[in-house]
Amino acid sequence: MISKKMNKLVENSSIIRAMFEEGKRLSYIYGEENVFDFSLGNPNVQPPENIKKTIIDILSEESPNLVHGYMNNSGYEDVRNNIAKYINKNNELKLTANNIIMTCGAAGGLNIILKSLLNPDDEVITFAPFFGEYANYVDNFYGKLVIVKSQAETFQPDIQALEEGINEKTKAIIINSPNNPTGVVYSEKSIKDIAKVLEKKEREYGTSIFLISDEPYREIVYDDIEVPFILKMYKNSFIGYSYSKSLSLPGERIGYIAVNSEMDNFEDIIASLNVANRILGFVNAPSLFQRVVGRTLGEEVDVNIYKKNRDLLYNHLINLGFQCIKPEGAFYLFPKTLIEDDKKFAQIAKKYNILLVPGTAFGWPGYCRIAYCIGYDKIEKSLEAFTKLAEECRSI
Amino acid sequence: MISKKMNKLVENSSIIRAMFEEGKRLSYIYGEENVFDFSLGNPNVQPPENIKKTIIDILSEESPNLVHGYMNNSGYEDVRNNIAKYINKNNELKLTANNIIMTCGAAGGLNIILKSLLNPDDEVITFAPFFGEYANYVDNFYGKLVIVKSQAETFQPDIQALEEGINEKTKAIIINSPNNPTGVVYSEKSIKDIAKVLEKKEREYGTSIFLISDEPYREIVYDDIEVPFILKMYKNSFIGYSYSKSLSLPGERIGYIAVNSEMDNFEDIIASLNVANRILGFVNAPSLFQRVVGRTLGEEVDVNIYKKNRDLLYNHLINLGFQCIKPEGAFYLFPKTLIEDDKKFAQIAKKYNILLVPGTAFGWPGYCRIAYCIGYDKIEKSLEAFTKLAEECRSI
Repeated sequence: MISKKMNKLVENSSIIRAMFEEGKRLSYIYGEENVFDFSLGNPNVQPPENIKKTIIDILSEESPNLVHGYMNNSGYEDVRNNIAKYINKNNELKLTANNIIMTCGAAGGLNIILKSLLNPDDEVITFAPFFGEYANYVDNFYGKLVIVKSQAETFQPDIQALEEGINEKTKAIIINSPNNPTGVVYSEKSIKDIAKVLEKKEREYGTSIFLISDEPYREIVYDDIEVPFILKMYKNSFIGYSYSKSLSLPGERIGYIAVNSEMDNFEDIIASLNVANRILGFVNAPSLFQRVVGRTLGEEVDVNIYKKNRDLLYNHLINLGFQCIKPEGAFYLFPKTLIEDDKKFAQIAKKYNILLVPGTAFGWPGYCRIAYCIGYDKIEKSLEAFTKLAEECRSI
Repeated sequence: MISKKMNKLVENSSIIRAMFEEGKRLSYIYGEENVFDFSLGNPNVQPPENIKKTIIDILSEESPNLVHGYMNNSGYEDVRNNIAKYINKNNELKLTANNIIMTCGAAGGLNIILKSLLNPDDEVITFAPFFGEYANYVDNFYGKLVIVKSQAETFQPDIQALEEGINEKTKAIIINSPNNPTGVVYSEKSIKDIAKVLEKKEREYGTSIFLISDEPYREIVYDDIEVPFILKMYKNSFIGYSYSKSLSLPGERIGYIAVNSEMDNFEDIIASLNVANRILGFVNAPSLFQRVVGRTLGEEVDVNIYKKNRDLLYNHLINLGFQCIKPEGAFYLFPKTLIEDDKKFAQIAKKYNILLVPGTAFGWPGYCRIAYCIGYDKIEKSLEAFTKLAEECRSI
């Protein structure tokens, strides 16, 4: 009855739902405080204090028909202008409102980019481990997601694998840094190497190959790490940004796309993003929150809360003998599972009331994702459960 | 460079943009107060006073991680429950939260319904004159929009045309009442006749044919007109609702889908809508405004403002000899143009600083759409311009 594409997805979603229901079942039996749900990337840190005040200021100072009304499908010009200036200040660029399209989060942004670029059977490359939604976003427009591997020791992109993955049908590459699920930040060298390969292949095939950088975690970084800014490093580049994590507003669906001024066919691409925003049904990014982010540029959640969580859990896992890269950003750990079968590992973890996601879901079996965007006290309490989990795994 | 589908749309959008720029040019030359822009369906009536208060209440009373956080892709359960109860009270139904999916306006709702239903080359029928976006929404999923005519005298659906338009590939019918562009409200008889034909054709072909009712104007009705409630009249029916017009919040992208409990494969359809909301990039309807509409059910803008506009302009046009159905809802007049060529008529209107949309844009040449959701004083001032327009047309 439902479409063939959706039929498969609904089957998968019922598995995820079953996991979610299992969490609720455990909470019901053992009490919510004794269940350690590391399965969801739902930020627990509060939005900055100023968000509430800014909303109230806007409602008092601006006309309701402006604040809640239609505007250009790309978003309010003054907001886009503010964002462009903010980016310029931090990156020595010369963007204007014309480079910015306000979107319903990064998910909305990625979809309108792909709608604008893809003809059926066009290929889009991403590096595993990867955020599983990319497969669905590409499939929405009848494209094909091609998955190439990262370097196993560092989770930096494997440049040779990228080069081998590109052919004349390759329309775009999606990268995600800071990365979900690994927490790794792509180095400047990695981005430059990607750019070099793409430029070479563009010349070889006489095509344009677009680099799409999905950056909802840009601000969630630790220890003074710098996230390289791709608009300075590759001509045909887009940034898909979201305020979901930097302002802890994931439900509000607010973000933007920044488009490189030097991009091939810049004017057509901008016009297409505009129309795609409209016809996919977004119409425009939610209006009040466009105005909110336009007034709160540079504000951020307290990243130290996540850092404390990371350090506590990371150190404990290392002491238990887990192999894990120390994440420089996002709020995920991606350790090797103590037994080879990651799905079985997740099953065993459940016995200790620990919920986590097998690496298989990210195209990288033998690992698991632990989302540490939960309360510090919860993590403290979970350490013993992880110890027991490690003991059981060692005894298998 | 951009995809083939988008290439065509970008060409069209540049024509619309040219019209928009023309309006700005006229405003620049003659002063904004002397340009009569009837081209956009952008509500000018203020949101109810209580919206602002409700937002502030929510920010004070509820936790920010709840108000701005992720929830189920279908939306907050308490909000969906409130909406279901509100619908039940007015329509003697037994909906629950399970029947309601919160969406990014009606545009988002229609897209996730079509994503859930359509395989490539499936057909969707609508009645001309029709909201042009339906063609794009259906095309997003490689479906084919089949346009059948309305009854020319009443703009009620032409049931025979519908019956002739249905074949074994027909997956859905989209109706829109109160209608954009005609302002007509479909009668109970019309809906019952549609239902009868669909039931007959379902039996004939052994298929399910879904009725999708796009209802952003449900509350914008005059003279105690009742808009029939399709969930009571046809089993395989969806309502796509939006608060854009009833609360004058079009920029906030907030609405819902109501799904008939008796629908074939109800559980799969609901699961699919849920997943489609996620993978098309909406993820969920904007969270704060979900909570706002959940607290303000039954609130409405002052429809009398639109009614006064309608009466003033309608009476004047009739006096000038225009043929026009008196609209019972929405905020559009759809008169026959005084010369046959509606595009030329719109060109001539521009000489008198009147901006309106040729009926051709709605698949109904020889007519034009006049959006009267602008200030009453602006309409008063425009009457003389309409008189001069009529004089020039009569002299051709």
